[in-house]
Amino acid sequence: MRWSTVVTAGLRALRIETPSWAYGNSGTRFKVFTRKGVPRDPYEKIADAAQVHRFTGAAPTVALHIPWDRVESYSDLAGHARANGVAIGAINSNVFQDDDYMLGSVTNPDPAVRRKALRHLLDCVDVMDATGSEVLKLWFSDGTNYPGQDDIRARQDRLAEALDAVYARLGDHQRLVLEYKLFEPAFYATDVPDWGTAYAHCLRLGPKARVVVDTGHHAPGTNIEFIVAFLLREGKLGGFDLNSRFYADDDLMAGAADPFQLFRIMYEVVRGGGLDGGVAFMLDQCHNIEPKIPGQIRSVMNVQEAAAKALLVDRDALARAQREGDVLGAHGVFMDAYGTDVRPLLAGFREEAGLAPDPMAAYAASGYAERIAADRIGGRQAGWEA
Amino acid sequence: MRWSTVVTAGLRALRIETPSWAYGNSGTRFKVFTRKGVPRDPYEKIADAAQVHRFTGAAPTVALHIPWDRVESYSDLAGHARANGVAIGAINSNVFQDDDYMLGSVTNPDPAVRRKALRHLLDCVDVMDATGSEVLKLWFSDGTNYPGQDDIRARQDRLAEALDAVYARLGDHQRLVLEYKLFEPAFYATDVPDWGTAYAHCLRLGPKARVVVDTGHHAPGTNIEFIVAFLLREGKLGGFDLNSRFYADDDLMAGAADPFQLFRIMYEVVRGGGLDGGVAFMLDQCHNIEPKIPGQIRSVMNVQEAAAKALLVDRDALARAQREGDVLGAHGVFMDAYGTDVRPLLAGFREEAGLAPDPMAAYAASGYAERIAADRIGGRQAGWEA
Amino acid sequence: MRWSTVVTAGLRALRIETPSWAYGNSGTRFKVFTRKGVPRDPYEKIADAAQVHRFTGAAPTVALHIPWDRVESYSDLAGHARANGVAIGAINSNVFQDDDYMLGSVTNPDPAVRRKALRHLLDCVDVMDATGSEVLKLWFSDGTNYPGQDDIRARQDRLAEALDAVYARLGDHQRLVLEYKLFEPAFYATDVPDWGTAYAHCLRLGPKARVVVDTGHHAPGTNIEFIVAFLLREGKLGGFDLNSRFYADDDLMAGAADPFQLFRIMYEVVRGGGLDGGVAFMLDQCHNIEPKIPGQIRSVMNVQEAAAKALLVDRDALARAQREGDVLGAHGVFMDAYGTDVRPLLAGFREEAGLAPDPMAAYAASGYAERIAADRIGGRQAGWEA
Amino acid sequence: MRWSTVVTAGLRALRIETPSWAYGNSGTRFKVFTRKGVPRDPYEKIADAAQVHRFTGAAPTVALHIPWDRVESYSDLAGHARANGVAIGAINSNVFQDDDYMLGSVTNPDPAVRRKALRHLLDCVDVMDATGSEVLKLWFSDGTNYPGQDDIRARQDRLAEALDAVYARLGDHQRLVLEYKLFEPAFYATDVPDWGTAYAHCLRLGPKARVVVDTGHHAPGTNIEFIVAFLLREGKLGGFDLNSRFYADDDLMAGAADPFQLFRIMYEVVRGGGLDGGVAFMLDQCHNIEPKIPGQIRSVMNVQEAAAKALLVDRDALARAQREGDVLGAHGVFMDAYGTDVRPLLAGFREEAGLAPDPMAAYAASGYAERIAADRIGGRQAGWEA
Repeated sequence: MRWSTVVTAGLRALRIETPSWAYGNSGTRFKVFTRKGVPRDPYEKIADAAQVHRFTGAAPTVALHIPWDRVESYSDLAGHARANGVAIGAINSNVFQDDDYMLGSVTNPDPAVRRKALRHLLDCVDVMDATGSEVLKLWFSDGTNYPGQDDIRARQDRLAEALDAVYARLGDHQRLVLEYKLFEPAFYATDVPDWGTAYAHCLRLGPKARVVVDTGHHAPGTNIEFIVAFLLREGKLGGFDLNSRFYADDDLMAGAADPFQLFRIMYEVVRGGGLDGGVAFMLDQCHNIEPKIPGQIRSVMNVQEAAAKALLVDRDALARAQREGDVLGAHGVFMDAYGTDVRPLLAGFREEAGLAPDPMAAYAASGYAERIAADRIGGRQAGWEA
Repeated sequence: MRWSTVVTAGLRALRIETPSWAYGNSGTRFKVFTRKGVPRDPYEKIADAAQVHRFTGAAPTVALHIPWDRVESYSDLAGHARANGVAIGAINSNVFQDDDYMLGSVTNPDPAVRRKALRHLLDCVDVMDATGSEVLKLWFSDGTNYPGQDDIRARQDRLAEALDAVYARLGDHQRLVLEYKLFEPAFYATDVPDWGTAYAHCLRLGPKARVVVDTGHHAPGTNIEFIVAFLLREGKLGGFDLNSRFYADDDLMAGAADPFQLFRIMYEVVRGGGLDGGVAFMLDQCHNIEPKIPGQIRSVMNVQEAAAKALLVDRDALARAQREGDVLGAHGVFMDAYGTDVRPLLAGFREEAGLAPDPMAAYAASGYAERIAADRIGGRQAGWEA
Repeated sequence: MRWSTVVTAGLRALRIETPSWAYGNSGTRFKVFTRKGVPRDPYEKIADAAQVHRFTGAAPTVALHIPWDRVESYSDLAGHARANGVAIGAINSNVFQDDDYMLGSVTNPDPAVRRKALRHLLDCVDVMDATGSEVLKLWFSDGTNYPGQDDIRARQDRLAEALDAVYARLGDHQRLVLEYKLFEPAFYATDVPDWGTAYAHCLRLGPKARVVVDTGHHAPGTNIEFIVAFLLREGKLGGFDLNSRFYADDDLMAGAADPFQLFRIMYEVVRGGGLDGGVAFMLDQCHNIEPKIPGQIRSVMNVQEAAAKALLVDRDALARAQREGDVLGAHGVFMDAYGTDVRPLLAGFREEAGLAPDPMAAYAASGYAERIAADRIGGRQAGWEA
Repeated sequence: MRWSTVVTAGLRALRIETPSWAYGNSGTRFKVFTRKGVPRDPYEKIADAAQVHRFTGAAPTVALHIPWDRVESYSDLAGHARANGVAIGAINSNVFQDDDYMLGSVTNPDPAVRRKALRHLLDCVDVMDATGSEVLKLWFSDGTNYPGQDDIRARQDRLAEALDAVYARLGDHQRLVLEYKLFEPAFYATDVPDWGTAYAHCLRLGPKARVVVDTGHHAPGTNIEFIVAFLLREGKLGGFDLNSRFYADDDLMAGAADPFQLFRIMYEVVRGGGLDGGVAFMLDQCHNIEPKIPGQIRSVMNVQEAAAKALLVDRDALARAQREGDVLGAHGVFMDAYGTDVRPLLAGFREEAGLAPDPMAAYAASGYAERIAADRIGGRQAGWEA
């Protein structure tokens, strides 16, 4: 087994952000199942996120979601994070849960609603200032359900106007990443449905705007690693919302549904210099039926394994076979890396860093799950509407 | 324009059942938007459903959903329906909203949960007895989210066992229809994912078990009218849950996303004798952003228009062209019917029945919407968890 | 029925180009079925295309495909077209049928193959010069079948280099349109898989480069009219390759599989000023089992019907309902236009232009089909490899 | 690493049939690329297939395709196979390449065509008698391209009639397997589009009829392992046509596009007793751009690796976690097997059987490829129309 400095350096560079909302309840429109020990406020969410970092050593930041993570003092929350050994990551805006947003937020036909939505986006930049966050993640659920319902093109004009205003508000060390999604909750025309749309807007906005790729937000058959390679080539890949899916935006654990796809994506990241900074690796998942902290730990490990395999690709041999048009040879080199069992490598990597070799087992043995189940009695569990 | 007795007879035979839950709130996992005047209990839902029948003359029954429509006295509820000019239709079981069902209901690995779920299904037959309902609609959200999570095959054994028990409980005039769905809320393996699975179980059960086709529950590209034609040929089409979609189980108004598909489906219904009784035409939709009663009226009208066009197909000319292998000729005959504007025909059909020619306008003019918005103050609006 | 000057003007502006290859044989990888009377050379193809224009009055140009339509003298071919009442339209390059292109044309890892492919593209501009064609249509089948086979990103570099060279060669009145396609014949990574990729390249190239939308080249669920609206807003919609599909790139007759989608697309065209020049409406279809000339006539008629319905949308009423957030009202206005039977309107439109009201019947009565079947004996029928 | 007798026994039981047509040319509708050394007749195809068995030890039979493999004497061909160390496997019928079949074979509206098609199917049983083949594989490309083109239901009647006649002709040790396919070459309604249709027909036919699952013949999102598990439970899984795909029926090498899916499928095979006889494992692939013999060898190895991982699943631990509802635990047990690098295990397995540990390298070193490239000069290379 090749244990090169390249692999180690790559793994060290890979930092995965976990989302505060993964620690709260989530579900489908049919049912949100609850579980003992679920956090009741942003402070408890951050405490849980800190456990993921404690056992993996690879998840040093936590993304916030406003207003789900609204607190009195964001600087206090940032201090709480630091005290727990983590930091605040991206600020995720939410302009989809107010009754006013039924027909859209920044693309709503009603200018008053648009103003309200924009105000929230600008407030999120205030939160960035207060927490030291450098990334504003924008996802718009905006769209229409029925043909004719609204003017597709006018909604782009409204979107552009809002984005311009947010962009103008960003500080020197701040940037925005724009997320796209094929559908849900809009069921006919989504206003930012694909990477092309997000890319075009980001291009107009300027260097502080980049595209974020949520791996669950594509049409069936979409080659996601192509998009990753393309955006990296254009200098416009802002980051990832990692998760996996068999069907639509299933939000399963990253690497669970198609580990080979995750490997291919991570290969293009490595190939395109995406580990060298500037690309944010964020998880965005729903642990509807599995315990949440272990769900995050497992996801972090899955991303690490995919990255390790990607780093193991013998790129010289690959380039040679590609150059010679040796289809099976090149494919073989690629698959050899994928076929490698990198779990021992990662166990060693962790031990060198003073961590337990098996984060899942170490977390289970820590008693943390039992402790929060016993302690967090009363109050209201956090969820997507909390 | 051909206005034959065939068309009129077909339209008269077409009775569309509306679901009680369409009148309550619904939404996505992201947000449930509320609206003034939404019913607060099953009685108010039935009152609203009666409006749809009042203006369309084609929606004489209302499906119930247990426990969403749990009441003290089901015979009283049935009497209320009769007093409003409608009747109770299918009883829809719900074994997906109890915390116990997180890992499945009748297919749960835990026998205690399976017993609880079965008890609920049998209770639903009690409700059928009390309301005079003849159809039990079974939809199981059961499935798994992760490969390995449970044994796919063992779950089929458990499913078969529960279905056998329910089937044995059915009275002489009662039947069950089994619904299938590709995914959601299960995101890896759904236990009844396709018509083939539902068909195989119904075949084993016997003549009182049939398959129900929800038009939104298929993989992309699935030819639904083929399934309809096939099941009718086998005598195993129990009915429809009509709605439309662009993506997944979007639950938009029937005919809104792909009116040509609805026409093709209705053509196979007509062709296969599906209007001659035995097939239940039910709507199953979510009016997330549009007003609910007009949403149902519009859907009923869309189904009627598709049926009228299907009935207008010149089947002699079609058969001739098909026999001769005249591809464009046969397609042309088919499309001629689809291209026909049947709205005048349907307006006339309604007027002959003493109805207003335009149900949407007539409902809007009736003042009912304003009345319920004013009257239904206080209480808790009904929704999927009410 | 509204028969306004707007509708008539719009229909007059709508000119649909037919592809020379639609008149030759086509099929699937499984079988190419032949048919009597199929053209044996470009001259006969143009003669057939002229029939489509003769009976529809709406198909005044014919696209060529090089090398399928290679002739001694292109100016002579252009003269033949003029003599038949039509003109040469877009020149379609073909860099996918030489054995050298097995691993790609302009993106091939072998620089010699890339040079050969580029030479062909430049030759196509020569054909434009000779025929007076103003549009070069570029479709690259380039891509890879297996992960690792070639470097996704390096292929973009090679693609960019070739496009730059072609763009530099364009004359003042010439432009290029770049086509994208999800897959086939490449089955893993296609080098121009989506509109975003084509858009990004065209943006870099400059104002003479635009994107062409083939309606059959998208992932399932893609909202094509959104792309149309977006590209029109950006001034980057070059044109259409119209056809229809239920599954993949089925290349059925435009409007046959989803007439409502075609209507929605044409509405965005109308809404975005796409009938006012600058957007090329081309058919790109395979008549595998239906006769080819009638297949083209029917397709032209389908596009006209969709356009007529789009032009009939009451845009004032629509804008009002949209502004008011009246979901069902706006949708209703939109659907009212779609529900209209525009066949009488189009029959009238044709008669005013001195054409038969029913082009399909008029062509059938003309005896042309019988004549070519009798005359075109011997020789080799044209097809995709001819 | 667990090297149990269970794994070894399972791998020994796994016999993979290669298809004669994989050794000939294949391609897409756009182009068939040729390659030196491709066989020119069935004898040469079998010689090539024998190489795959020689180096893998796991591919002892070759499927024939009639008429592509039509020979004077089938018993002579069978003898040639034996002499090369392999045997004749399934006989694949072909009723899609005659001009008469443009509108269908056994479902054609023309009874004369149906008779012709049936005669061919019965002829295939004669070939089975002559070669000792025990499996008749039926795939019908039958279907329609346009709505209305033919009567969907009548085509089922015709299909049933033909299947009945073929079934009646089968000898005691012969069986038929019926293949389904979502689309292509039919682009609207395929007559056997899904497993449910094939299953219903096989059920009617009797115990000698079973369903064959081609892994590339499903709608996007279809859970193939569910189908496998279900059919095994019903005793109706006849076999597999293995290949892989990213999009449609891409016919890439098995395991190349989604190795995790292949693992999941093989797990259900193991779980359901599918290695214990009665299930045929056949490859059905197109090596459009890669060399064919190595393409087959690699595919056989991929299937073996997936099977080895499936056999390695700790089923006791899995069952325990499943019973306890331990979602992440059960998934973890499953993934532990998938994450294992089984290449050393398989190398050892081969060496014990007297084979080279790396079949790809051994074949490359054998000089066979160079030999056939040099020897097979002149004649016409075999392909899908040969």
